[in-house]
Amino acid sequence: MRDVSTAASSLVEEFFSSLKWNSDELIPVIIQDDENGDVLMFAWMNEMALRQTLWTGLVTFWSRSRQELWVKGETSRHFQTLKSIAVDCDEDCLLIRVIQEGVACHELYRSCFFRSISTDGTIRLNQDRPDLSGIVTRS
Amino acid sequence: MRDVSTAASSLVEEFFSSLKWNSDELIPVIIQDDENGDVLMFAWMNEMALRQTLWTGLVTFWSRSRQELWVKGETSRHFQTLKSIAVDCDEDCLLIRVIQEGVACHELYRSCFFRSISTDGTIRLNQDRPDLSGIVTRS
Repeated sequence: MRDVSTAASSLVEEFFSSLKWNSDELIPVIIQDDENGDVLMFAWMNEMALRQTLWTGLVTFWSRSRQELWVKGETSRHFQTLKSIAVDCDEDCLLIRVIQEGVACHELYRSCFFRSISTDGTIRLNQDRPDLSGIVTRS
Repeated sequence: MRDVSTAASSLVEEFFSSLKWNSDELIPVIIQDDENGDVLMFAWMNEMALRQTLWTGLVTFWSRSRQELWVKGETSRHFQTLKSIAVDCDEDCLLIRVIQEGVACHELYRSCFFRSISTDGTIRLNQDRPDLSGIVTRS
């Protein structure tokens, strides 16, 4: 008889094997603010990044530019704590809800999607930079 | 002196040229429900799909499997009407808010992200299929 942790581990492995990784062994990930539903950012994970996210509870991506694991917030301290992971119908995209410490964007906006385009081509800011004086800021 | 439409057109061209398309000339697109902020689906656009989306107000993707333009809802009548387009800090991902007619998912859930995974590997439904009897359903 398998114990509970073995059964759980088996389920996690089943989940991993069901995912459709792209030709670079990556899966696209949408990060959503668990507090208000705002979409914060978009990035990529490889299998190790997803495992590490599950193990540690801190969202970890694969940096395509640096070709290394990237714990979101490791430099800025603007960590993302895992709340939930949803997978889409085609099993080729993840939607991860997080508690966002500080801001998601390296330009110090709460969300990376801080600019909107109108049909006439005008680009406008759709948010202000929050006051970060109360928390540890980017080092 | 340029007239307004020429200036607008120029701004749109500037926006298009600022986007970073991938090696397949595609950009990832997150579709968000303008009514409640739910993330509905994830897909890809090429330049023509994005232009058609702006011109027609109906969200149009590039189908990677069929290698053709794909007006979302052209078969199911579950159209997505464009509300706004945001671009991320790296200019390599779009966040599009829509008015969703019916359901976004071909499995007839409102959102394609209808399954969540727990840390123990259990997968559960996070939504019910809506009653579609009041609208035109998938043909």
